[in-house]
Amino acid sequence: MRRLLSLLGAVLLLASCQSLSSRVGSTPPPEGQPIFLGEKHSLRSAILEEERGFQLYLPPGYAESSERYPVLYLLDGDAHFHHATGVVQFLAGNSHIPPMIVVGVPNTKRTRDLTPPPHGDTVMPGDTSARSIAQSLPTAGGADRFLRFLEEELAPHIEAHYRTRPYRVLVGHSFGGLFAIHALMNRPQSFNAYIAISPSLWWNNGELVAGAVKSLERLPEQERFLYMSMGEEGEEMLKPIQRLAATLEEARPARLVWRYAFLPNDHHASTPHRTLYDGLEAAFEDLRLAQWEARTGELAQVETRYAQLSKRLGFELQPPEELINVMGYSLLQRGKVEAALTAFRRNVERHGDSANVHDSLGEALEAAGQLEEALESYRRALALGIQANKVHPAYQQHVERVMSKLSVQASGDGAP
Amino acid sequence: MRRLLSLLGAVLLLASCQSLSSRVGSTPPPEGQPIFLGEKHSLRSAILEEERGFQLYLPPGYAESSERYPVLYLLDGDAHFHHATGVVQFLAGNSHIPPMIVVGVPNTKRTRDLTPPPHGDTVMPGDTSARSIAQSLPTAGGADRFLRFLEEELAPHIEAHYRTRPYRVLVGHSFGGLFAIHALMNRPQSFNAYIAISPSLWWNNGELVAGAVKSLERLPEQERFLYMSMGEEGEEMLKPIQRLAATLEEARPARLVWRYAFLPNDHHASTPHRTLYDGLEAAFEDLRLAQWEARTGELAQVETRYAQLSKRLGFELQPPEELINVMGYSLLQRGKVEAALTAFRRNVERHGDSANVHDSLGEALEAAGQLEEALESYRRALALGIQANKVHPAYQQHVERVMSKLSVQASGDGAP
Repeated sequence: MRRLLSLLGAVLLLASCQSLSSRVGSTPPPEGQPIFLGEKHSLRSAILEEERGFQLYLPPGYAESSERYPVLYLLDGDAHFHHATGVVQFLAGNSHIPPMIVVGVPNTKRTRDLTPPPHGDTVMPGDTSARSIAQSLPTAGGADRFLRFLEEELAPHIEAHYRTRPYRVLVGHSFGGLFAIHALMNRPQSFNAYIAISPSLWWNNGELVAGAVKSLERLPEQERFLYMSMGEEGEEMLKPIQRLAATLEEARPARLVWRYAFLPNDHHASTPHRTLYDGLEAAFEDLRLAQWEARTGELAQVETRYAQLSKRLGFELQPPEELINVMGYSLLQRGKVEAALTAFRRNVERHGDSANVHDSLGEALEAAGQLEEALESYRRALALGIQANKVHPAYQQHVERVMSKLSVQASGDGAP
Repeated sequence: MRRLLSLLGAVLLLASCQSLSSRVGSTPPPEGQPIFLGEKHSLRSAILEEERGFQLYLPPGYAESSERYPVLYLLDGDAHFHHATGVVQFLAGNSHIPPMIVVGVPNTKRTRDLTPPPHGDTVMPGDTSARSIAQSLPTAGGADRFLRFLEEELAPHIEAHYRTRPYRVLVGHSFGGLFAIHALMNRPQSFNAYIAISPSLWWNNGELVAGAVKSLERLPEQERFLYMSMGEEGEEMLKPIQRLAATLEEARPARLVWRYAFLPNDHHASTPHRTLYDGLEAAFEDLRLAQWEARTGELAQVETRYAQLSKRLGFELQPPEELINVMGYSLLQRGKVEAALTAFRRNVERHGDSANVHDSLGEALEAAGQLEEALESYRRALALGIQANKVHPAYQQHVERVMSKLSVQASGDGAP
């Protein structure tokens, strides 16, 4: 049997990856202490009339925080959960994207769920039998029902049980990429960002491409984001996505930000990882750019960028404590002591419970020659550190250093 | 306190990532069925005189197979284990790299373990105090002892307890990148491939770069591989690696394959993921190229490529069953029935227990008009499928299809 129906159809390859990854996922390691990646859950779908499992990844620190997080819905969950959550962990660790919850959606009947109803005479690329897709894929056509499951059952379930932001990302590959673009064009309110990896846009002779301009006429008020990619996958895959990119380039639908990437060194099955990394980084590009500004600019610039992005995304994102801290030290290094004080003071305002923000402010105050105020900040850092049982040796050293500077000053004042 | 000492020193950033990821790793999920990523283990190091923990990732199917695997040793394990194992899972799933064991090595005293003994007047980039590294990093200098730990204690422990190939990859970032290049230049027999991400080659005024040609004069018989990367990280980081690349370009050390990638959109902390992906793909580039050949060439070409790569790597790699299967169908589609039969027959020789290889051979035999032989193959597939409790509906359909073709032939023969 041809497991990989064709370079373009790659449906069953995913099925074979699944069996491997789920086997690993469910067998406890034979010895040693387990390292957890996430959890498997399930819910009964009235719409699909079946039990649906899902995989759940919660960002580091979820249990200890009261934060809320955007949610990434990942189609073909079994094949992609491990490496996709790795991308999210890494990019969020760099503040290139916000920390996110990932919900992997494994398949039951993949072709049924991910394809719009087939019609016309489309033949699957690589199928030499010349049968139409309605004949060769008799279960196809359930995309709208599956989208209702995601929108009306799965997402509400996640949002009821976990601390989420009103921002949903949909990621799909191959038929899943087709599904993502189908969702954007037919139910653009269902997700905020769509990452369509090697989408099978040849479906129904490219009807999604032909109808794109009309479909995208009335997008919701809040900006939508679309990232599409294609590897070296043959003309039947390449032409429709090129046509879609050209159409979007010309029509410039309002409130749609989109990108298209061609990956010349990738084949159909190898596009997902790079696309997911680049697509997520692009969806939150301002966060990556803020990393540079923190090293070259001042606080107002970074805060303005975060505010603009928050407005576009529809939820509030704040520059993280670590970013402002980096910025403060960068400003100090550039000799901009007043600007550094402004940055560190913002961290004290916003993260007053963190010992380190007080210690950092102390360093800027010390650099500004405000030794009494510096001592107060250092002491506050030390006290909070003791309270949280996380005392860095530097905190104590800083207190002692400023105390001795002050005593030198005092003795200098006393003796001519 | 400046957690991130500088864009270039990024030592403590990793420490803070660690605390997050280890917290997640050790807290069992509150509900649902756990999904495992790996295991934590430890061993007593006589060389370092301390207990050393390590993280272990075994490839999908490890428990059920008797295969042996190359091993990737990952420095700063706590920060990188999740996303790095994700890269390995994804690339191995695409046969762009062999399936690998990953051993994450978390830090105890990071600066001590990853740096060669400091000498001279080098100042850490971004350190405005003008203290030499010997003064500012008083614990530095233990790289050789740590390398002995990896080579004489950790790797032998892994090789004694798990099914390994004699092929070791070392991956390090920042000081870890410095360490990887130090290891290649001083103990090139310790690892086969070295991925040095944003290496701190400014250490000791760039002495590793200055001594590169001499150090690389006598590499072991088996080829070594080096992949180095650098983001937009300032002149002090960029200049030494550019000099090293220029030196290698000119000196062309025998038996060293190397690449250098500049990542203009990345800063010091964001280089690891892309570098790991591209570096691993480059280390086994022939496997990626074989994916293309399977779709355009014939069996001999792919087998020759695998044989050449096996010779270079020093261990035997065979084209996987799935790749040959894809190739067979691609040949059938291109009308090369004899070449397809050759490919499918090789799979039957090598994977005779797999039901699918017999079913695939049956399809080629059927296409060649050898219906009796096709029926025999299909029946074998069905029998093996039943035996393994994995019967694909296609197996039965194929048997029936050929039987009816044969009966038409028979009746055709009987009645004029």
